[in-house]
Amino acid sequence: MPNAHPRTVLVLGGDGFCGWPTALDQSDRGRKVVIVDNLSRRKIDAELGTASLTPIQSPERRLEAWRETSGRSIDFVDLDVSSDVEALSAVLEEHRPDAVVHFAEQRSAPYSMLSTTHRNYTVRNNLMATQNLLEAIRLTRLPTHIVHLGSVGVYGYSSKDWTMPEGYLAVTVPSSEHPDRQVEILHPFEPVSIYHLSKCMDAQLFEFYARYDRLRITDLHQGVVWGTQTRLTKQNDLLINRFDYDSIWGTVVNRFLMQAALGHPLTVYGEGEQTRAFIHLEDAVTCVNLALENPPAARERVRIRNQVAECLRVVDVAGVISDSTGAAITYVDNPRIEEAQNTLQVTNDSFSELGFIPTFLRDGIWRESVDIAQRFRDCADLDRIMPHRSGEHVRAVGA
Amino acid sequence: MPNAHPRTVLVLGGDGFCGWPTALDQSDRGRKVVIVDNLSRRKIDAELGTASLTPIQSPERRLEAWRETSGRSIDFVDLDVSSDVEALSAVLEEHRPDAVVHFAEQRSAPYSMLSTTHRNYTVRNNLMATQNLLEAIRLTRLPTHIVHLGSVGVYGYSSKDWTMPEGYLAVTVPSSEHPDRQVEILHPFEPVSIYHLSKCMDAQLFEFYARYDRLRITDLHQGVVWGTQTRLTKQNDLLINRFDYDSIWGTVVNRFLMQAALGHPLTVYGEGEQTRAFIHLEDAVTCVNLALENPPAARERVRIRNQVAECLRVVDVAGVISDSTGAAITYVDNPRIEEAQNTLQVTNDSFSELGFIPTFLRDGIWRESVDIAQRFRDCADLDRIMPHRSGEHVRAVGA
Repeated sequence: MPNAHPRTVLVLGGDGFCGWPTALDQSDRGRKVVIVDNLSRRKIDAELGTASLTPIQSPERRLEAWRETSGRSIDFVDLDVSSDVEALSAVLEEHRPDAVVHFAEQRSAPYSMLSTTHRNYTVRNNLMATQNLLEAIRLTRLPTHIVHLGSVGVYGYSSKDWTMPEGYLAVTVPSSEHPDRQVEILHPFEPVSIYHLSKCMDAQLFEFYARYDRLRITDLHQGVVWGTQTRLTKQNDLLINRFDYDSIWGTVVNRFLMQAALGHPLTVYGEGEQTRAFIHLEDAVTCVNLALENPPAARERVRIRNQVAECLRVVDVAGVISDSTGAAITYVDNPRIEEAQNTLQVTNDSFSELGFIPTFLRDGIWRESVDIAQRFRDCADLDRIMPHRSGEHVRAVGA
Repeated sequence: MPNAHPRTVLVLGGDGFCGWPTALDQSDRGRKVVIVDNLSRRKIDAELGTASLTPIQSPERRLEAWRETSGRSIDFVDLDVSSDVEALSAVLEEHRPDAVVHFAEQRSAPYSMLSTTHRNYTVRNNLMATQNLLEAIRLTRLPTHIVHLGSVGVYGYSSKDWTMPEGYLAVTVPSSEHPDRQVEILHPFEPVSIYHLSKCMDAQLFEFYARYDRLRITDLHQGVVWGTQTRLTKQNDLLINRFDYDSIWGTVVNRFLMQAALGHPLTVYGEGEQTRAFIHLEDAVTCVNLALENPPAARERVRIRNQVAECLRVVDVAGVISDSTGAAITYVDNPRIEEAQNTLQVTNDSFSELGFIPTFLRDGIWRESVDIAQRFRDCADLDRIMPHRSGEHVRAVGA
């Protein structure tokens, strides 16, 4: 039923950077929300010695704070969706959600390249989480809409002569026997890390389950997310969202913001001519909601939406932050294997048509994150704000 | 080093229907051969109550018979490559193979659709086997060439206006801003079962590891294999190859041959207007060897070759066998979800250019399989030669 607002929403990975603000947003809209998360992101922090700059609370304490602040309650199920399809099916049977937002994947490109263990974990964890979700919905025969967080990075960063469409590309197949045939294909992938590769493989799973088993699926091709807080996480310090600034988990904007807060030069990799798509965290949450409220029809192919506000060169990102904060810019050898420069244009028509008005970096809302970084600067681990160059890590790529 | 014949070849899945004759063929060519297999195919027979019509021997007994017959020895390692990348790496370090032939995947489309357990097993087993192999080769830094057995079925069976190329399709991307751009893409996938889907996802893994980690990979897009014995497996009854005739493991030609041997009508699904690509087992073994002897150069993209002899409609296959044996043909409701009819043209230029001369069904060599079926007819389970129509099995597809 298109345009029907969901009443019950499961948020897989609802303890994470995007998942937590999404869960609060959905709860704030009066929907019954169930977070399903195995806290793998917190456990990986323990493994790597990384940490959120902000003092995020335990799931239980966060949810208690949300009850006190909003008067609304969110359920929490501690479950590894990548390993237990029966338990996931039971959760679906119990709550019968109209929609599931699927964030339950390892989401760092650099992490996915650290070693064989990390590569294989990313492939197995991400694909089996997706496969188990698809199977659980097929088994329960619920009309549940899946909204998956993918990445616009699945297409790689070699320059192309066209604006990146929303998933599907119209092409012509030349033929000697027939008139040339126009077909619409999934835009070819060119993943730049095992993380991105796992998202490409997810896309194959989605295509199959939408066509063969008639599941209703939206795949959001998200840009690099920046920012820390949302309107809702700001309401109470106990609701604070995570802030990653290290070279594994911190995206480029958040690393620059941390550097600016500490009076450290902004470290641009190479010449900074890499162009990437960006979106602010609050906008990402807004777009997830628009996707939830506008599901594909039954028997429709996978709906792919670019969850992107703007495309910027890394050096332009540094320039905006430097101009306003006075931070210096320093150019360091690129520790990543990637094109030194590229052009990139990405359409976001499907969200624009639904009324999405993006926040741009130049609008200045990023100063909030500098304030947060300054507030917690004493907790910062300075070793973590520079790129690593040892071992396999130097092959890490992504944004 | 293109055109250098391999001296040492690992055959993953070397106990199976295609793997066993391939291992013998490579050994017969004077190469050191190591079979790596966890005997999963034999274990699944125990699970399903299916069985090879022919009395296949234990790996140990087969290999002893091969030593006696040929004077050559083949090593056997009992290992699940989908679950143990360290052990696989150790095998690679020990034998330092020039090439690995990768058959170590669940290979039945109907099996892959039986239930959630079977769907998930197929995804996890096939992808992690491939991922572990790629990682093991990356870790050991050997220049080992991977030859993977894929399926021409990854492209689905909707009719297309072009001859299926070998992996890559030249298309034009219309542009309003630039001249139309010609690009070569991986031919779009349209898998018709979870089994085929796993092969599409394998293709994504191969593309990444060839581009990013510079692994040398050949992906063979094989047609439906028919036949039972090869020149080498015929030499000694203890070397006999497996013969599957049931609706899970038996491909359409072998099911018809069994029915002909038993005087049973040939059961054509629907009108039999489905067109599929076929290849005889001996030809498949020959093509694997041609692929091994002609690896891609270092830094080349994945070499994709169509391992196909001819395309035939199912009703034509039945006709050839009926004309020669006098078997009746009966049309049954199609238990599979598939197009009722399709056209299909598949090029096999890359093998033709290497001197491959295909065997066609009409050449009559299939009579050997009827002889085998008649010899072992008393062992046949008649319930197994008709399609199942109960439970989820009726949704099973593939060939």
